[in-house]
Amino acid sequence: MATAYQSLQSTFERLHRFQHLKNIAGWDQAANMPAKGNEARAAATAEMAALIHSIQTDPKLGDWIRAAEQESLDPTQKANLREIRRTWLSATAIPEELVRAQELATSRCEHAWRTQRPANDWKGFIGNFEEVLMLAREQAKRLSDVLEVSPYEAMMSLYEPGLRTADLDRWFGDLRTWLPGLIQEVIEKQSRESVEIPQGPFELSAQRDLCEKVMRALGFDFEAGRLDVSTHPFCGGVPEDVRITTRFRSDEFLPSLFGTIHETGHARYEQNLPRALLGQPVARARSMALHESQSLFFEMQLGCHPGFMQRLAPMLTEAFGRQSAFAAENLVRLLTRVKPGYIRVDADEVTYPAHILLRYDIERALIEGQMEARDIPERWDQLMQELLGVDTRGNYRDGPLQDIHWPAGLFGYFPCYTLGAMYAAQWFASMKASYPAIDDAIARWDFDQPFGWLRDNIWSQASQWTTDELATRASGSPLNPEHFRAHLTRRYL
Amino acid sequence: MATAYQSLQSTFERLHRFQHLKNIAGWDQAANMPAKGNEARAAATAEMAALIHSIQTDPKLGDWIRAAEQESLDPTQKANLREIRRTWLSATAIPEELVRAQELATSRCEHAWRTQRPANDWKGFIGNFEEVLMLAREQAKRLSDVLEVSPYEAMMSLYEPGLRTADLDRWFGDLRTWLPGLIQEVIEKQSRESVEIPQGPFELSAQRDLCEKVMRALGFDFEAGRLDVSTHPFCGGVPEDVRITTRFRSDEFLPSLFGTIHETGHARYEQNLPRALLGQPVARARSMALHESQSLFFEMQLGCHPGFMQRLAPMLTEAFGRQSAFAAENLVRLLTRVKPGYIRVDADEVTYPAHILLRYDIERALIEGQMEARDIPERWDQLMQELLGVDTRGNYRDGPLQDIHWPAGLFGYFPCYTLGAMYAAQWFASMKASYPAIDDAIARWDFDQPFGWLRDNIWSQASQWTTDELATRASGSPLNPEHFRAHLTRRYL
Repeated sequence: MATAYQSLQSTFERLHRFQHLKNIAGWDQAANMPAKGNEARAAATAEMAALIHSIQTDPKLGDWIRAAEQESLDPTQKANLREIRRTWLSATAIPEELVRAQELATSRCEHAWRTQRPANDWKGFIGNFEEVLMLAREQAKRLSDVLEVSPYEAMMSLYEPGLRTADLDRWFGDLRTWLPGLIQEVIEKQSRESVEIPQGPFELSAQRDLCEKVMRALGFDFEAGRLDVSTHPFCGGVPEDVRITTRFRSDEFLPSLFGTIHETGHARYEQNLPRALLGQPVARARSMALHESQSLFFEMQLGCHPGFMQRLAPMLTEAFGRQSAFAAENLVRLLTRVKPGYIRVDADEVTYPAHILLRYDIERALIEGQMEARDIPERWDQLMQELLGVDTRGNYRDGPLQDIHWPAGLFGYFPCYTLGAMYAAQWFASMKASYPAIDDAIARWDFDQPFGWLRDNIWSQASQWTTDELATRASGSPLNPEHFRAHLTRRYL
Repeated sequence: MATAYQSLQSTFERLHRFQHLKNIAGWDQAANMPAKGNEARAAATAEMAALIHSIQTDPKLGDWIRAAEQESLDPTQKANLREIRRTWLSATAIPEELVRAQELATSRCEHAWRTQRPANDWKGFIGNFEEVLMLAREQAKRLSDVLEVSPYEAMMSLYEPGLRTADLDRWFGDLRTWLPGLIQEVIEKQSRESVEIPQGPFELSAQRDLCEKVMRALGFDFEAGRLDVSTHPFCGGVPEDVRITTRFRSDEFLPSLFGTIHETGHARYEQNLPRALLGQPVARARSMALHESQSLFFEMQLGCHPGFMQRLAPMLTEAFGRQSAFAAENLVRLLTRVKPGYIRVDADEVTYPAHILLRYDIERALIEGQMEARDIPERWDQLMQELLGVDTRGNYRDGPLQDIHWPAGLFGYFPCYTLGAMYAAQWFASMKASYPAIDDAIARWDFDQPFGWLRDNIWSQASQWTTDELATRASGSPLNPEHFRAHLTRRYL
């Protein structure tokens, strides 16, 4: 007779296998699928989502969870049970009809958004979006009831379990006091520097080779993953077979190279989750903030490290021929150039958090009912002016219509990007304390120290601990945004 | 309240969606997947196979089928119910434990075969294979009981429903009387001809472009499918998004080009199945013999047609530069060269059926218990000598170890290849009767007549009729192998 815990374990193994097919189909949809395949793919994926939801909400699970809580379990099993319980609670909180209504509303809103955004059509957008928002509030309310946290916290818990707005307000409130000033100071300082822009065209196959070479140097396992091309770069697939994507343009190569470095950070986390437990919730990546801490560690802490440029520079010459813009010092200036702009995904390391402060302010008010969809543009314009000094009035396309998150019903994700940047700075500070010569090692592209540290402290730990516990075990304290401020100050002033 | 028929319909729609994910994952496995992804992929696919089997064998289905048979249905619904019943009967005939035992045995046998074949290790192979055979006999016996046909017919019914050995014996018996003589005559005739071989290397990207150009000319819809590369070329994916594969070598281009033309035939069948009914069994391709009739129509009837070469010749010059071997008459000679050999998949149009006669003889005796696994080599050697005059003694690698079918537990499929060639000749004869100028149209690469005929008579008909009915409606009679003989005689003598 299987124990209750064993029954849970095999149910989650089964879910892992179904999720595998869904993930590969999702990657294929972005990387390969021809246009006419879309309808059948959407139907197949929705059918699988429904199956997964029905397995997650099977009443037997509740019984097994209660029974397993009385069984004698080792610490990893206990952690697994905690994660199973969280998954089950979040799934059962949402009735089937709400899931279906949200799928319908978000896919309608997202589909229309794809043409409304280029057409700057805020009025057209808001009709669909009000429905999405109403359903998201309903979802937040129901989650909030079972998780016993506020509605916005409940939404955040889907991406960053345990994250509280009290902490976020402290961290982001502090950020807001010094970030706009720092941005102005950096702009002022950089206005006296000259930067040389590499001149294209850059052959696509040479760009691809370069990306793969850098991925290899960063430890990506090509026997357990691939690099492909898609319109919106992402890290997908499954831990056993990680699929990252990028996109190439012949007139510039740095965005695709550094996008690839970013996704490689996500990929290595997935590729190094504990193999023996794969399939169990405890073996999943801890959270989205921690995931972003890996991609941003690779992109910002490592990729934009002045030492990293020492060996990158000759590789660029080898790939594209000699250019004076490929000098290491010029590359550093290029990659640390700060310029306030409209678009979050194009933002530099220093202005990026301002975009997140804005979105956190708005989406929290939306979910908590202090703001309506129609109020977004005014607040958007005001915050862009305050935080970045740019004027977005009437420009919805480059304003609240720029992100896919809200039309897709994703509220509560945005903070993870900046928390990730903060954690990444904290990890690097902690490594530096253990390995005083780490900068020299990075300049030799000898990454044993940073990757050994990440493997031991982050990747192999998966979801064994809460985020706070994990951060404390890894670096001596929960998130401390001072590391991020120190990093920006050191690098940019 | 849904009628019983409607309940069946939505169950099969659901199955179609799950099958979609399984097919895309299967294509990905062959075309993209890195080595370390294999174990997780196999587990995910097996989980899905188990789910599909459990839905197909749900006892409710039997009740609905019986009830639907009393409901008032239109002819298409009746045909659909017939196909549903067949699927359900075949699925329920095989108990879960047998499915699992077969999966285990075939995957073990196939896995070992991949190294045993190059090692010429018949002794090692036979141990695993005896288990596969024993389970296949058990499967055949159980299917035979519910389908009320002989065990080998029951196995064939999985690929060619309704096919009887009495017919096959008549068709193949006739073939056997004249094929060996024809082969000798053709060899004798061709020994007086000289053929020029195109000289490589042939740039891979030029080969790829050429393949895509020819696919386009043959009507492949790239908005609803792709061409990719895999070790063993195949046609996969789903009707809404057909994935065909090929493989390229720089020293020759004809095998990959004509392999692509072959797969394009499969693809167009899938791409032109009736859209409104997709998901229902009645909208599936009729059978594997009919599927092969499409690929072989494209490859042999059309691709090797002397008129087809008229426009192919200048395309080759454009792709690879001028060569005298690219002259249309030389291409015809090259592509119709007959040479008995060991390997089925490398065989020409004339010797190919000999390989099938041999396999039919052996696999039927194996399933019916008149032969044991250990008797295969002797019979193989004897038949290869009789049919093709080649000596295979001791050469298991190029003998009974060459095909994946038997290690994978596929018995009853082989006849479909030659039935497909026969149907293809019959279709062409029927088109010619309707369109006397079809040869001239083909020489202009104007394919409206053949494709219009195939669309009306084969593709759009899907599984509305039995194979015999479909053939009769399309061409005036069920399969008549005389068309194949006439085709070979006309082309080769």
